Amino acid sequence: MTKLKAVALGGGHGLHATLTALKRITVDVTAVVTVADDGGSSGRLRREISGLLPPGDLRKAMAALAGEDDESRLWTSLFRHRFGGTGALAGHAVGNLVLAGLLEQLGDPVKVLEHASKLLGVRGRVLPMSNEPLDIEADVTGLDEDVNDVRRIRGQVAIATTPGLVRRIRLTAPNGRPVGCPEAVQAVLDADLVLLGPGSWFTSVLPHLLVPELHDALVRTRARKALVLNLVPQPGETAGFSPERHLDVVCEHAPELKVDAVIADVDSVPTPDRLTRAASALGARTHLARIAAPDAVERHDPEALAGCLRQVVDETGMGGTSPWR
Amino acid sequence: MTKLKAVALGGGHGLHATLTALKRITVDVTAVVTVADDGGSSGRLRREISGLLPPGDLRKAMAALAGEDDESRLWTSLFRHRFGGTGALAGHAVGNLVLAGLLEQLGDPVKVLEHASKLLGVRGRVLPMSNEPLDIEADVTGLDEDVNDVRRIRGQVAIATTPGLVRRIRLTAPNGRPVGCPEAVQAVLDADLVLLGPGSWFTSVLPHLLVPELHDALVRTRARKALVLNLVPQPGETAGFSPERHLDVVCEHAPELKVDAVIADVDSVPTPDRLTRAASALGARTHLARIAAPDAVERHDPEALAGCLRQVVDETGMGGTSPWR
Repeated sequence: MTKLKAVALGGGHGLHATLTALKRITVDVTAVVTVADDGGSSGRLRREISGLLPPGDLRKAMAALAGEDDESRLWTSLFRHRFGGTGALAGHAVGNLVLAGLLEQLGDPVKVLEHASKLLGVRGRVLPMSNEPLDIEADVTGLDEDVNDVRRIRGQVAIATTPGLVRRIRLTAPNGRPVGCPEAVQAVLDADLVLLGPGSWFTSVLPHLLVPELHDALVRTRARKALVLNLVPQPGETAGFSPERHLDVVCEHAPELKVDAVIADVDSVPTPDRLTRAASALGARTHLARIAAPDAVERHDPEALAGCLRQVVDETGMGGTSPWR
Repeated sequence: MTKLKAVALGGGHGLHATLTALKRITVDVTAVVTVADDGGSSGRLRREISGLLPPGDLRKAMAALAGEDDESRLWTSLFRHRFGGTGALAGHAVGNLVLAGLLEQLGDPVKVLEHASKLLGVRGRVLPMSNEPLDIEADVTGLDEDVNDVRRIRGQVAIATTPGLVRRIRLTAPNGRPVGCPEAVQAVLDADLVLLGPGSWFTSVLPHLLVPELHDALVRTRARKALVLNLVPQPGETAGFSPERHLDVVCEHAPELKVDAVIADVDSVPTPDRLTRAASALGARTHLARIAAPDAVERHDPEALAGCLRQVVDETGMGGTSPWR
């Protein structure tokens, strides 16, 4: 366990996986969470409360870093608890309602997350990528007779489930261009290690690169940067995508970005040579390891992923000294 | 400040008033709260989640005893915060949703209230009068052409707003007769001082007397017992009721109950002689004082009520020694 400053960017289950792995190797973990979700409980809350930051991914990131004592477990479990039945509350996670209430009351999402994190005994920090809710817009082909016709698809759910081929995404904010959360930007600048992915590639991973301040911080930071690839292509947004195609779209969306390492599960890379070539274009070495959970190939094994991250840190060298001493 | 064990029975604003006064005179305060509310946010939750204890009055009692530090204030204020707008959540207090979630998850309301009380820094204890939600049924006259015809009215809201004259109430429970919360019964038995009222007389004050175990504990306890009268008659359930009529209905609903003191605001008692006579029937002395808030005659002034309670304790003597040393 070190004091290595680690920042993980993402959302949903993918971010949960990197946070669970990171907390095994350092006590200083910051999550920077997408705020463009428009589905499920979060989506319903956004539609009901104008200007609300979607709370679901923030809640899940807190759960990944939550304390292990009885009181922390109780509140974490309550935050995850969804109302049953068929009424107006059915399907809402209690934590989403608490975060929505705190956001209405305090305004500042960074303060809201500080208070909620304290309740859940969070070790580390959870930040939104932007203090305002954002929306994703995608150029998608394959939806019309002429497969090259480009259609504009709006919203995280619509993009994540499109039968077409996602080409490019953009972010829109309530008042024009998206603005990075200053604390998240600073965390990236101050980090020793930054992780991007895994997760829904277009709707949870790439959005961070499209927030200008966050993009610039990712380009400028002296941190070691690693991209963690998905274990399986995601039906909808990345159906049929090879591992190297995932890297290509990163290049296309953020040409200035260089990364140090590309981490992938050895069994999910059919053509390692191609992946190595695509990684080189990003300035990265590939790290292939067995990091899928033994019981569920679509899930990362936290311990195995942690082991791989330790290796990346060791090999890329953190300022010349081993961070593990 | 003493260690006098004080128990206040009631619900809503009335209970808030006694708790706010009691916490000025002792550190050991227990609230025993009605669980028959079927209106507002609590009523909507009861209709949506089968078997749910209505959380609103429990939440208000916790707020009255909540801590004064920043963190306690934040969560207390969040618990009170109601969602705005016109959507599915509009009007729900966040604390009601948290309590509903905890009740679904933990089952035992005493445990739920312990955890929530810790979050709000509650000094003292909040207990439900029964661990199951109850319903009130009233015999009401004056609703038909023959003003003596008796109609049966069901539910707290219906009774509280009836244009008729409430004669008698009964409690119904999901499985037949209501059962007292064991911890609440024990608190009454162990108390030095028990307060009943003020509050909605038929729907917040009398229900406690109709829970058999609680009734028996109130009859048997060696605690000094005081009834605190309302400052103004309540439109609906006690429209046109004189102070002495309030005492008469207590006698009618619990003939075995004796109390030591009847506390009333001097300006809200037009005929003190009659009140003294009605109080005697309960075995009580009347204590008339200026206890209405200077700025709102329908609200008790906590400091004035506390002063009056100190006097009652001194005059009735707590086991022969002054509890204030």
